[in-house]
Amino acid sequence: MAPLRALAYARQHRPRFLEELKAFIRFPTISSQPAHARDLKRCAAWLAGQLRRVGLENVKVIPTRGHPIVYGAWQRNSDSPTVLVYGHYDVLPADPLEEWKTQPFEPVVIGDNLHGRGACDDKGQLFAHIKALESYLMTERTLPVSVKCLFEGEEELDSPHFAPFVQKNRRALSANAVVMSDTRMLAPDRPAISYAERGTLRVELEVHGPRQDLHSGNFGGAIHNPLQALCEMLASFHDANGRVAIPGFYNSVRTWGEEEREFMAHTGPRDGDILRDAQVSRGWGERGYSLYERTTLRPALTLNGIVGGHQGSGVKAVIPSRALAKLSFRLVPDQDPQEIGQLFRTHIKRISPPAVKSTVRLLSSAKPALLNRDHPSMRAAAFAYRKGFGSSPVFLRSGGTIPVVDTFQQILGIPTVLMGFALPDDRIHAPNEKFHLPNFYNGIATCIWFLKAAGGKLGSAPAGRREEEWSVAHGY
Amino acid sequence: MAPLRALAYARQHRPRFLEELKAFIRFPTISSQPAHARDLKRCAAWLAGQLRRVGLENVKVIPTRGHPIVYGAWQRNSDSPTVLVYGHYDVLPADPLEEWKTQPFEPVVIGDNLHGRGACDDKGQLFAHIKALESYLMTERTLPVSVKCLFEGEEELDSPHFAPFVQKNRRALSANAVVMSDTRMLAPDRPAISYAERGTLRVELEVHGPRQDLHSGNFGGAIHNPLQALCEMLASFHDANGRVAIPGFYNSVRTWGEEEREFMAHTGPRDGDILRDAQVSRGWGERGYSLYERTTLRPALTLNGIVGGHQGSGVKAVIPSRALAKLSFRLVPDQDPQEIGQLFRTHIKRISPPAVKSTVRLLSSAKPALLNRDHPSMRAAAFAYRKGFGSSPVFLRSGGTIPVVDTFQQILGIPTVLMGFALPDDRIHAPNEKFHLPNFYNGIATCIWFLKAAGGKLGSAPAGRREEEWSVAHGY
Repeated sequence: MAPLRALAYARQHRPRFLEELKAFIRFPTISSQPAHARDLKRCAAWLAGQLRRVGLENVKVIPTRGHPIVYGAWQRNSDSPTVLVYGHYDVLPADPLEEWKTQPFEPVVIGDNLHGRGACDDKGQLFAHIKALESYLMTERTLPVSVKCLFEGEEELDSPHFAPFVQKNRRALSANAVVMSDTRMLAPDRPAISYAERGTLRVELEVHGPRQDLHSGNFGGAIHNPLQALCEMLASFHDANGRVAIPGFYNSVRTWGEEEREFMAHTGPRDGDILRDAQVSRGWGERGYSLYERTTLRPALTLNGIVGGHQGSGVKAVIPSRALAKLSFRLVPDQDPQEIGQLFRTHIKRISPPAVKSTVRLLSSAKPALLNRDHPSMRAAAFAYRKGFGSSPVFLRSGGTIPVVDTFQQILGIPTVLMGFALPDDRIHAPNEKFHLPNFYNGIATCIWFLKAAGGKLGSAPAGRREEEWSVAHGY
Repeated sequence: MAPLRALAYARQHRPRFLEELKAFIRFPTISSQPAHARDLKRCAAWLAGQLRRVGLENVKVIPTRGHPIVYGAWQRNSDSPTVLVYGHYDVLPADPLEEWKTQPFEPVVIGDNLHGRGACDDKGQLFAHIKALESYLMTERTLPVSVKCLFEGEEELDSPHFAPFVQKNRRALSANAVVMSDTRMLAPDRPAISYAERGTLRVELEVHGPRQDLHSGNFGGAIHNPLQALCEMLASFHDANGRVAIPGFYNSVRTWGEEEREFMAHTGPRDGDILRDAQVSRGWGERGYSLYERTTLRPALTLNGIVGGHQGSGVKAVIPSRALAKLSFRLVPDQDPQEIGQLFRTHIKRISPPAVKSTVRLLSSAKPALLNRDHPSMRAAAFAYRKGFGSSPVFLRSGGTIPVVDTFQQILGIPTVLMGFALPDDRIHAPNEKFHLPNFYNGIATCIWFLKAAGGKLGSAPAGRREEEWSVAHGY
């Protein structure tokens, strides 16, 4: 039976849903900046209030060593299958601020789009699930499946406290599948489900030279410059063919057969699509692979930022005393972040010039994830997209990293359905981020249909189901 | 006759001189930061007040398109030789602020040193001349020579408005020699006179990639990164032998014979001295030259700073849309800044990768300067040092750039005596800049003796002497 009343409710309450989403975006929940810790706390409380209001039970804000996790559940009956809805309410910094056309934390509707930091990644997409639950519960007073909602505030930090939390509460969090919406469709009428995510390893490379900045007139030409040494090392990380030139880097990269590459060529974006999304005129990178393959099937190393020397206005004739590069690897099966980190350390040790001192810091990491395209939860999502957006989704690989996918797979033993509603031009992580409002509304309908389909396809309750037992130690 | 009364006066008023110097340093006269323009104006007015109080005449604050010039003179009689005293009251930015142990603009005496931005470069050294003039005029009511003081507020910007000003007022500024104190001694008992300055050319290299920052997960590996492209270009600027690898760069570099190199080896700092000053354990640079030669006789290219990608706290997985490098060349005879700029542009055009767009901006420049070690003004300075510090100065080349030396040579046709009082460990241009107070006091005595000796050695009035004619158009 179609969830007609829930769908009608959702359509009817769109203006209020939009206003509530704006309120959600107004919290400047920048998880990487300690100054915003209070904003994350306030936002978590607001989110918990939403869950209570839409009819979830056992709602709680769970503190961690970092930012809190928000939980809420609705139990159908003991043999119902369970869907775990995951999302994140934290956002990236909004800089460079001068490139925003609107205020990042003052959401504004322009045409069909809602502009604001986090509008798309991930507040808008997360909120579609909450509004789907509300629409169901307010009209039917029941759900087709049991549901557990789990929203974290540290996804943009690579979820440092999330895996230990899931580990300690793996019984309470037992489910048949996870669903989350934090990925992209190809176009407003072309939904997509990601079945692969690249892993990541973030590193910092710091080079120390003289104890303090030196006058480049007095010493230029005779004392090595750590910023120059850093650039020379960074320049050595890629060869002329666009391959990462760190010895051993490709040793564990899985080779894919013609079948998978043909599937990808058939379903995935073409080079021209990717260039258009990036708004650049030509591609770059490893020869022998399409741009889609380069961003998904093949690993990459990106220099995200450099801090070194004089950066303010004006000029300053110095040899800086230190320089720092922020880098991120994107890894693919079967690369292991720890092994790659070791290769990187070894490489730096070998190439660091003797007149300076180089230090490598390995920061957060996450393993690559690969999901079964034929799992019942995937089929439920495909059905829901057909109902919500009017077209079947394509199954795509994603170049990004969602560390929790690996966490859920390793700890709970269940797949994550990446049922995203973002568009390629939504400018996530960039100035002028926006969310396409038709996707918000169709996304709510899709989530309603997903709940419906999951009830039919996921079978019975997850194995090892017990009464919820929570580890509320603040040790995450 | 020895200027005994002036010397006694100077000794007696040391505590007040020190307090006045502190007041001078308290003006945060950072010429490169528009926000401090008012501080430079206030400081110029204060400096003019000093000149009036010590007895100079015709004192004025002359506006320019940038920061003002302060002038004051004292006319002995029509056939007296004239000394032009030059200095600058502007300073470099104080960043990185967290490395200062005291407040940069709140001068503090610690042991024998006065700490503060500009304490040494150039406020302390400039002030020694003013206090020498005061000591003479307050005791003798006359000076052994005519004097013109000229203090600018844009030296740290490479004096963009100074040369046009001198050009328009070359009659009013006529003199037999310039004296300035803005260079280093080797040690408190080893004075030095610089007879060569390197030229400079400051450039910015900016690389543009995608129109906006891109998510490095979604696009990493397929879209070129302007920050990586910038590093690869920067890494190509030096070869493995520490030479600048821009084609044609050494074409005009003058080759020096054994005589000059032996003179330098005899008089100049040894490698160990330079390493100790820089507080590093090993040198770097062009093979076949001593560190002293590398910093004076040979040109250099220094990467002063990079602005690119995420630089704040936390992590941000972006391919930045642009990256900027700030570079400075140090040039030697007979390199021409304009020619070097052209070579640089051509080089960038050749090496810039096709997937990004590179832009070169040529900023300020100054020609290298070479002075006659046997000029009477040099001999007067050598005599003054012997009296003020008890030792004969060595004649050294300097690696830095003082653009006005070339200006005075080209426009007024006179040499500049670089009679500096700074010490190698005074940390000019760096955090915790300081001035060695014994050098301040001995510097004042040296300036008194210089006025005395100049009266005897410089002969008669400069050629073309007329009544002062000032061009007060605000066109500088």
